[in-house]
Amino acid sequence: MPKGSKSFASEPELVAWLKQRARLHGRDVSAGIGDDAAVLRLGGAHRLLATTDLSIEGVHFSAQFHPPHSVGYRALARALSDIAAMGGTPRFALVSLALSRNQGRSWVKGFYRGFMALARRFGVSLIGGDTAIVSGATTVDVVGLGAVKAPDVLLRSGAKPGDQIFVSGELGLSATGLAALKHAAGREGGRGEPGERVIRRALRAHLYPEPRCALGRFLAERRLASAAIDLSDGLSSDLHRLCHSSGVGATLLAERIPAPAPPSARKFKITDRLDLALNGGEDYELLFTVPAGKADKIPRHFKNVPLSWIGEIGSKRSLRLINADGKELPLIPKGFDHFRTAR
Amino acid sequence: MPKGSKSFASEPELVAWLKQRARLHGRDVSAGIGDDAAVLRLGGAHRLLATTDLSIEGVHFSAQFHPPHSVGYRALARALSDIAAMGGTPRFALVSLALSRNQGRSWVKGFYRGFMALARRFGVSLIGGDTAIVSGATTVDVVGLGAVKAPDVLLRSGAKPGDQIFVSGELGLSATGLAALKHAAGREGGRGEPGERVIRRALRAHLYPEPRCALGRFLAERRLASAAIDLSDGLSSDLHRLCHSSGVGATLLAERIPAPAPPSARKFKITDRLDLALNGGEDYELLFTVPAGKADKIPRHFKNVPLSWIGEIGSKRSLRLINADGKELPLIPKGFDHFRTAR
Repeated sequence: MPKGSKSFASEPELVAWLKQRARLHGRDVSAGIGDDAAVLRLGGAHRLLATTDLSIEGVHFSAQFHPPHSVGYRALARALSDIAAMGGTPRFALVSLALSRNQGRSWVKGFYRGFMALARRFGVSLIGGDTAIVSGATTVDVVGLGAVKAPDVLLRSGAKPGDQIFVSGELGLSATGLAALKHAAGREGGRGEPGERVIRRALRAHLYPEPRCALGRFLAERRLASAAIDLSDGLSSDLHRLCHSSGVGATLLAERIPAPAPPSARKFKITDRLDLALNGGEDYELLFTVPAGKADKIPRHFKNVPLSWIGEIGSKRSLRLINADGKELPLIPKGFDHFRTAR
Repeated sequence: MPKGSKSFASEPELVAWLKQRARLHGRDVSAGIGDDAAVLRLGGAHRLLATTDLSIEGVHFSAQFHPPHSVGYRALARALSDIAAMGGTPRFALVSLALSRNQGRSWVKGFYRGFMALARRFGVSLIGGDTAIVSGATTVDVVGLGAVKAPDVLLRSGAKPGDQIFVSGELGLSATGLAALKHAAGREGGRGEPGERVIRRALRAHLYPEPRCALGRFLAERRLASAAIDLSDGLSSDLHRLCHSSGVGATLLAERIPAPAPPSARKFKITDRLDLALNGGEDYELLFTVPAGKADKIPRHFKNVPLSWIGEIGSKRSLRLINADGKELPLIPKGFDHFRTAR
């Protein structure tokens, strides 16, 4: 850091500084900086959702562990997951690619093939972008544009005391997959080709996460959720963000958090599956709150994805975790903060 | 480059490969990859314009020559200029910032202040983005969203043989400004503080280029232009792109190209002002074509910006330049190609 220059201590601090200065035009912007995607009024009953997500070599992916096909797939999945968390349908994407000299034509083709495979499945058109060659690490920025009917928009800010907290899927699976990839790379001299000894499900969750767009729409259209956010950085951090936006607190039950224990977990140095579920990040599941009177309308499964009740929103602004012994602990946001953990 | 891996030779080559694979959904996308911005149908009489532009330290700006205020301003100007070239009105922007550890809080504040100064002047709301800290160079990606009435959209592809070619402003001015900045930095030990000896107008054009949104709208709403593109990489390259999209060729008159000769140009090692005008890049002026019958409706000036006739579209696919002696030369695209000139 240059002398006499202070950096922003965290991403939320920078976002807060920006929110004050962005001077949003109230008429056109229903939700701006600080939600999963911006909500734009452009005439008619539909709102446009716009989100942008960086995927940086050495921060969000590794050239050693992640095949280019997965890098492209995941870069788009990050944006689609944001649109899912708003209750929207993804429609268009743009890709800006600052490409390292080290990554040649086959890497670029693999990247776009992975990107396009997911785009096709969700009916998303790649409509533009920008490209450059750089001497440093590859940086990808994906813009996702989606649509949602005006009254259906799911925000982070709608949670009320007494609302019940749910989460989709299994948490910590992506971090388990990454641990398995690192383990395999170490055993095989850095090739990173996963063999049978690594857990297929965790690898799939890590390399090819599934954006929960259908679930987001279901929650939005049936008016079941009062608030939603996607789990990109980890349950502890993302719940903190949802509660901060809503001006509420929350209590989670550790035993209810769907944190699978892979049989061979110890091989990959995974000792605390709850820690991974809370802080591992990159699960791209949906965290959502439901008014108590509607909680019984949440099915156990939605299209084969388990939906788990994990706690309750409270009026006190603190986040608490009740562990297996019934002991109440503070829940500290320890998920991924791009300002803290960049390598 | 890794062994056995071929890279894409140029940005157009990658874009062409992508266009084939993007599988555009015809119903919703009026124009996609390969124009200044994508044109999206989202219901109603208006079209949404979406564009994204990278600004990379060491490629598009230098921490030595460019104050952070200018880096922020220029990053947004790139996107607004694309929207201007489509005849649109910019409305919203998102910023993804992969920030080098070397740039502290004061740099970030300066960057966003410059960005916001331009945004405010054009009524653009900053509605979101993404941030991360990286160990390498700073990379900025700006998403610009704009609106345009459906029949007013200006594309690159509409030029016809016989159309007259016009350009706004003065070309090569931005490259002159950069040369002056480099000269000043060399004289002052790398501080880059411009003194009286550098040319103010060229510095202004380089550090604070003016997106030609009002001109774009004027040409679009009066149906004067058959095609348009903004001059980001240099007249030679951008005219080539417009002609390629339209399936035509062009002949330019060197003497008609508005290429000012700064009095102190020799100081900055500027010996060929025509070369700067053709290949310097970053002028962010509009290049547009006008059917011959409407050419007399183009004013000499539009809001104090000179509009110059510089040549004619032809049916032969080649690009030619007639020099001061009446000699016809091939016009080679030598402007900025991010795949060729990255440092």
